[in-house]
Amino acid sequence: MKIHIRGLPMMWASLLILSMIVLNTVPMTCGDEHNELKWSRAAAEEAEAVASIKCSGHGRASLDGLPIEGKPACQCNSCYSGDDCSVLLPNCAVDSGSAMVVSGWHRMGYSYEDGSYISRELEKVIRRLHEVVGNANTKGKYILFGAGSTQLLNAAIVGLSLKPPQNYTGNHSFSPANVVASIPFYQVYKQQTDIYNSLSFKWKGDASLWKNNSDSTENFIEFVTSPNNPDGRIMEPVLKGSSVKTIYDYAYYWPHYTGISTPVDTELMIFTISKLTGHAGSRFGWAFVKDRALYERMENYLDVNSIGSSHDTQLRALVLLKSVLKDKARGLFEFGHAYGWLKCERKEDGDCPAVLRAAGVMGRNGSVFHASNKYVRLSLIRSQDDFDLLLRKIDALVSQE
Amino acid sequence: MKIHIRGLPMMWASLLILSMIVLNTVPMTCGDEHNELKWSRAAAEEAEAVASIKCSGHGRASLDGLPIEGKPACQCNSCYSGDDCSVLLPNCAVDSGSAMVVSGWHRMGYSYEDGSYISRELEKVIRRLHEVVGNANTKGKYILFGAGSTQLLNAAIVGLSLKPPQNYTGNHSFSPANVVASIPFYQVYKQQTDIYNSLSFKWKGDASLWKNNSDSTENFIEFVTSPNNPDGRIMEPVLKGSSVKTIYDYAYYWPHYTGISTPVDTELMIFTISKLTGHAGSRFGWAFVKDRALYERMENYLDVNSIGSSHDTQLRALVLLKSVLKDKARGLFEFGHAYGWLKCERKEDGDCPAVLRAAGVMGRNGSVFHASNKYVRLSLIRSQDDFDLLLRKIDALVSQE
Repeated sequence: MKIHIRGLPMMWASLLILSMIVLNTVPMTCGDEHNELKWSRAAAEEAEAVASIKCSGHGRASLDGLPIEGKPACQCNSCYSGDDCSVLLPNCAVDSGSAMVVSGWHRMGYSYEDGSYISRELEKVIRRLHEVVGNANTKGKYILFGAGSTQLLNAAIVGLSLKPPQNYTGNHSFSPANVVASIPFYQVYKQQTDIYNSLSFKWKGDASLWKNNSDSTENFIEFVTSPNNPDGRIMEPVLKGSSVKTIYDYAYYWPHYTGISTPVDTELMIFTISKLTGHAGSRFGWAFVKDRALYERMENYLDVNSIGSSHDTQLRALVLLKSVLKDKARGLFEFGHAYGWLKCERKEDGDCPAVLRAAGVMGRNGSVFHASNKYVRLSLIRSQDDFDLLLRKIDALVSQE
Repeated sequence: MKIHIRGLPMMWASLLILSMIVLNTVPMTCGDEHNELKWSRAAAEEAEAVASIKCSGHGRASLDGLPIEGKPACQCNSCYSGDDCSVLLPNCAVDSGSAMVVSGWHRMGYSYEDGSYISRELEKVIRRLHEVVGNANTKGKYILFGAGSTQLLNAAIVGLSLKPPQNYTGNHSFSPANVVASIPFYQVYKQQTDIYNSLSFKWKGDASLWKNNSDSTENFIEFVTSPNNPDGRIMEPVLKGSSVKTIYDYAYYWPHYTGISTPVDTELMIFTISKLTGHAGSRFGWAFVKDRALYERMENYLDVNSIGSSHDTQLRALVLLKSVLKDKARGLFEFGHAYGWLKCERKEDGDCPAVLRAAGVMGRNGSVFHASNKYVRLSLIRSQDDFDLLLRKIDALVSQE
């Protein structure tokens, strides 16, 4: 058995871990008044006390975890289980991160200094990140924040579609915008389009079905997810023409998922922190919009839907993205590339995942990535223990043969 | 001039300050290893360093504030202005709060231990708060979290309205639910209903216009805001009958806005932290729903609209509401009652606000509260300096006469 390992973008990852970002802890010096914490001390101590609860060093308790016998229960690292996280599981992921302190008075009001719902510091960091990574040209584009990219996708549909004539009964020449995407697509596109039973937009399924209709008088909105979810392909719009508007979902257009050949520079670009740092639970996404009128319609949607985006979440995104930017973002993305794409080259090993499974190595089938099952993707962003174990098992498998 | 001051609920308050909740800071003891902070130290120091920036003791800089000359700018307390917050303004509010620390790894995934998007610890604290305050019966009701009550209001409309028949063109017997509210109403009700151009629901204005129609075959959804925004009245539904569904917006049903005569116990009750502690920027609200099917439809809406509510925000709400609960929530609400309702009793003082303005005292006109302008509401939840100043000015005014 010959083994070829090369870098491969990771898809399907619901939790990418910010593993290279290690917090620099500053040792406490007695008598150094500069280091005396005041209002944040109790909160910091409580957080550390909770975080230090038993958990065997392989998990952490959280203030908002369900308590067991009055104490917050351990949330084990993905490698560990059991009440105190002492049971090692085969399936691990590294886990570290950037801490932050939120004061009781932080950003209580609805808006920021400029009257908007957007932290301009966070905006700056986001624009800088795209510049450093080289994955998007944000110049001359307006920015919007949403509760994940999810909320922004819907803002885009509402923003791009038209209002029906007053007292519309279905007999006028007006027709709803046809919302489409290429199969396989992210199911939320359809769910969001369907849920309002809107006269302004209607789900019409696979984009390719409408290829020949696209210079008709009907309006189309096409979702283009690139790289695509779930199959990772780089996508282009299927429909073109003056009656077609395109929503570009670039959730996965980061160096740990794909090669960044060129900065994207489209009219409506949507990103999310979920697939960038793995902080899906924060619900934070952003959109760049070229057209002023569209930007305003989307902004209005976000105001009406939730009066902007949580300030707590914006502060957290700021802290996280500043961490990502350290060392020109190399920490996260170079680490994130570390995936193995393994091929079983013996003729009889047609089912490579099975061969590896038998040897105690779990990978993701090549077919998931539209390759054959001669291939397996190995996840290497785990603990050193796991990596050593993987090497030992593969070594044993190769020696056996 | 005789002065009568009695407790009055505050309405219109966009920012209620959690002033009684003072963080207990624990003094640092050298050599006490228990007090050594580890991973949270740098974040805590950074937050304190930023928070301690100049600002003359009358404001705070924030990590996500716009920097001036490379340093985060001061956000002055509402009483102060100027670059370094050294300029005292007449219109002050006290400002304190509860701090929290968020680790880099806090709740990165989409869901909590039970697979939901809801922190069960926060749920417990919310139910306990209603029990202690006595403003709502939450027993036997499902809970939902939203991005402010705003998102929940829309979830309720979608959840309560029906799907039109497939390929509906307006000629069937199906008709959209008529969404109504009593004038004056919160404008977001109308905006949310209008923005989707939905076949399922339609804005129909003032509830009283439909009073005689309400036992027709048409469906109605009525928003009942009690106490009402903006006028503070305790409200009851205008429409009744089997074809009417009611959304109760209880944003202001707390002891600092109104007397709590009885715990509310309705089918669909919506609350928000914005009007409870003043943390509008956090975007956090919750709903209690009696009917299982409605709860599931609303939950589905929240999933599709934003994949649940930010975990960072939920942690902050937990910390804030735990603070509110200290001392059986007396701190916040007894303090919150401290408003003055002042009446000018001399015949010639028909414009009481003007009389006070001339004496350098700013209040809110009685007419705002549907009383006459013989009355003024004085805001007493300000700094001790301000309170002393108010007493001095009123004393001077009375002596003058």
